[in-house]
Amino acid sequence: MITGKNYIGNLLSSIGNKTFKTFNPQTNTENSILFSEASDVEIQQAVELATEAFAVFKLVSGVKKSDFLNEIANQIEALGDVLIKTYCSETGLPEDRVIGERARTVFQLRSFANLVKEGSWVEATINKADLNRQPIPKVDIRKMLIPIGPVVVFGASNFPLAYSTAGGDTAAAFAAGCPVIVKSHPMHAGTGELVASAIINAAEKTGMPNGVFSNLNSSGIEVGVTLVKHSQVKAVGFTGSVQGGRALYNLASQREEPIPVFAEMGSVNPVIILPEATKSKGADWAKTYAVSITLGSGQFCTNPGLILGIKGNELTNFITKLSAEIVTIEPTCMLHPNIIGAFESNKSKMLAQKGLQSTATFKKEVSKNYGRQAITTVEGVTFLANTNLHQEVFGPFSMIVQCENTTQLENIISNLEGQLTGTILAENGELENYANIVSALQNRVGRIIFNGVPTGVEVCDAMVHGGPYPASTDSRFTAVGINSIKRWVRPFSYQSWPNELLPNELKNENPLGILRVVDGKRTTHKL
Amino acid sequence: MITGKNYIGNLLSSIGNKTFKTFNPQTNTENSILFSEASDVEIQQAVELATEAFAVFKLVSGVKKSDFLNEIANQIEALGDVLIKTYCSETGLPEDRVIGERARTVFQLRSFANLVKEGSWVEATINKADLNRQPIPKVDIRKMLIPIGPVVVFGASNFPLAYSTAGGDTAAAFAAGCPVIVKSHPMHAGTGELVASAIINAAEKTGMPNGVFSNLNSSGIEVGVTLVKHSQVKAVGFTGSVQGGRALYNLASQREEPIPVFAEMGSVNPVIILPEATKSKGADWAKTYAVSITLGSGQFCTNPGLILGIKGNELTNFITKLSAEIVTIEPTCMLHPNIIGAFESNKSKMLAQKGLQSTATFKKEVSKNYGRQAITTVEGVTFLANTNLHQEVFGPFSMIVQCENTTQLENIISNLEGQLTGTILAENGELENYANIVSALQNRVGRIIFNGVPTGVEVCDAMVHGGPYPASTDSRFTAVGINSIKRWVRPFSYQSWPNELLPNELKNENPLGILRVVDGKRTTHKL
Repeated sequence: MITGKNYIGNLLSSIGNKTFKTFNPQTNTENSILFSEASDVEIQQAVELATEAFAVFKLVSGVKKSDFLNEIANQIEALGDVLIKTYCSETGLPEDRVIGERARTVFQLRSFANLVKEGSWVEATINKADLNRQPIPKVDIRKMLIPIGPVVVFGASNFPLAYSTAGGDTAAAFAAGCPVIVKSHPMHAGTGELVASAIINAAEKTGMPNGVFSNLNSSGIEVGVTLVKHSQVKAVGFTGSVQGGRALYNLASQREEPIPVFAEMGSVNPVIILPEATKSKGADWAKTYAVSITLGSGQFCTNPGLILGIKGNELTNFITKLSAEIVTIEPTCMLHPNIIGAFESNKSKMLAQKGLQSTATFKKEVSKNYGRQAITTVEGVTFLANTNLHQEVFGPFSMIVQCENTTQLENIISNLEGQLTGTILAENGELENYANIVSALQNRVGRIIFNGVPTGVEVCDAMVHGGPYPASTDSRFTAVGINSIKRWVRPFSYQSWPNELLPNELKNENPLGILRVVDGKRTTHKL
Repeated sequence: MITGKNYIGNLLSSIGNKTFKTFNPQTNTENSILFSEASDVEIQQAVELATEAFAVFKLVSGVKKSDFLNEIANQIEALGDVLIKTYCSETGLPEDRVIGERARTVFQLRSFANLVKEGSWVEATINKADLNRQPIPKVDIRKMLIPIGPVVVFGASNFPLAYSTAGGDTAAAFAAGCPVIVKSHPMHAGTGELVASAIINAAEKTGMPNGVFSNLNSSGIEVGVTLVKHSQVKAVGFTGSVQGGRALYNLASQREEPIPVFAEMGSVNPVIILPEATKSKGADWAKTYAVSITLGSGQFCTNPGLILGIKGNELTNFITKLSAEIVTIEPTCMLHPNIIGAFESNKSKMLAQKGLQSTATFKKEVSKNYGRQAITTVEGVTFLANTNLHQEVFGPFSMIVQCENTTQLENIISNLEGQLTGTILAENGELENYANIVSALQNRVGRIIFNGVPTGVEVCDAMVHGGPYPASTDSRFTAVGINSIKRWVRPFSYQSWPNELLPNELKNENPLGILRVVDGKRTTHKL
């Protein structure tokens, strides 16, 4: 049952005056439940509880954290139909999408459970003492990764499960040993509360300290601002717009004690179609990309919003084919009237830019809140001169840039903002001749794809989801995969510490049997 | 020979109008060489060269980077006496200190050389494709760490070799594959130029691209500000004051594209002397700490500036003994009139704080620029109420806080700013009763020491030199040890990339024989 209340630790609370409702874009009506926005008192309580919980949670063993994470996964699965129905009613997305995203969410939680159960992720490193060393004796130093403190997570509008309440940021923070306060996304507050209840149930069932998790409702920016400015909050995770992510980053960096913000933000995910590929496979790629551009109504951060090719008949044919293909695809519902409103507005602004030509728009009548796709094209020189054309249009929209030659292509790539992904479409043996293009693209992206589409982010330990700003605020971390735990930990050294008081990870006996680096050698042996 | 010029890549240049000289604090006179501050044109040239060099340097093999790093070490050793004499004349520090610091610098360079020659540090991770996976095929994803881009390094006043021109930041950045532009410290610009010439010689001898290194002189903040704001600079390393580090952090975070700043800044390095240790070993610890507080005239970032104990006769005895011991130590020369000026001024400000009592000051006449040590004490309640008392006094100064009880002690620790180190002095079996103290201390520091002194930072892979703000601007990294390379790299994924075009680290054949994680298993085998 959805109450509309906040979870302040394990207590449901609604003492504030501000309320709001979620919206069903398919029916174009408000949903019935009234949500109570977290008040300043509730925010303060949540942070205090998290701070208290941290003192206990940071010492909880990997095995117990693993039980907690697995139990969250169980509890989410146990929510059953109510979760699916609530999710659909708050997003306009179809049931199969929910089921897929739930599976991804549960997989992420179980991946982190396995990681912390095994335990070697802490990078235990030991340098033994050498009292006979000259000119001065060498002390015993032992290092491991420890949790950074309470983390605030901002849920994403476009991933109510996998990148929101119990999504990647939260799962990674729990695995690290950090309490989490979620600033629930207002568009899917009901889905958020259901998942929050699953986390609270799991925390109680597996004996986690009260305050290890809180879920705060909000309709505007105030709750998030208060949280990020709170001195007891030690890190922030965010998935959303550049505007939103940058605002949080600015707040966090202006604090008396600045804190790290990992914000995964916008990207146009440039795709480079090389001449041979344009010639021999242009039609196939046009078909493939028509699907990728419209997938989920273009509401993926890896949506291909920019395609770069070398001017000529072959590229013209590709544009014609892509334009023809894309209008054969039926539009789908977007997440919220605000999202489609921004899409239409940004599309119009883009089309008003000098030199940009529309080559396809879905023109037929569609249901309310359905996003109508568009393809545009522009000359390389025009694109280079106008950075408005470099901005993301969140939704089913893409722009094809017709470059004069490979020098201009390389120049354009070098002048792009940071991106999550870059893709190169090439024929056999063609890529070898474009080393400069690959090098320039590598400098601007977090992941590079050969002959594929950027949509679809595999959850695996070799994945990088992040990239140079503004793809993310810190390219040194990934938001997807088990290594995303590194956002919420810091290395910590013990010098000459008594063996019996060291954490198990660093004891002589290696009671956990984890892989450690001892005097430069990897080993699972005891000292 | 010291020319007073800047190195813009491998060219000596002095086109600016601003000049300055270094100062010999032992003789209290200016040194003779005139240094030319880098002009805007020279700064721009250095950054452009670094950007061009990056395209080549990022692809240089680990073996070749290793040759480069080892050759820098050789060239520094080959500088011989002129380096030692110049260093002494610019710092007032004794010869044996230079020799020790040079050995440390060379060791750091060779440690990174070994790291990149072996090659496994890139954390190569491979998830093989599975075309039969349901519901959708799994793509091939391969990840490794790649360099972040041109790095600007600000040298430290107190470590002209180990944390300046070819110090830890520079060595780590080169190892990562990042070109480096050093903003040379004005107090030891001659030492800086000598080491810069060693780097340039090494770069030429081992075939590194021109622009992989530049050395810019500066007397004020302008050169540094221009560098940090430059759009082609991708990261910053700094060692120095909180004021300086925070200013750079603010500049970097206000850029259109914010960049990471790793600043290792101030710390008072709290030492907690527990009651049993105070009672049975108080006199011994007083002797040991008198030495640690005055070591190098207190000009170490790990200098113990704060000692916390429980009020009583034993603590009074400890204070008396420490006060008596410290005045038996002969003062030594501080780095520069500005440094001793700040020391005297901060000491006076501290002594003017209400409730602070002086228990020892070295009163005898000393040579000009010699720092006279002081010990002070204050009640716990007074310390808690006045954060001015929490600030670092850079130099031979320490404050003993007399806490009412362990609750107040824990409260004080929790209210400290972030610190590089925390030390606990305890008798056998005593520490077990202070789990809350240890937990609170852990939250505020990067390294915790049992029965020792914080001065002395071992260069090893288990060392953490860094900590919660303001010990450093990002506690997730260390400034010392081979893992400090992680400040200058980012993870990068290749998806479905042709094997022959992958970097050697990720090729099926594993031609480098490095340790990789393949489908979750660590292995040095080929696929």
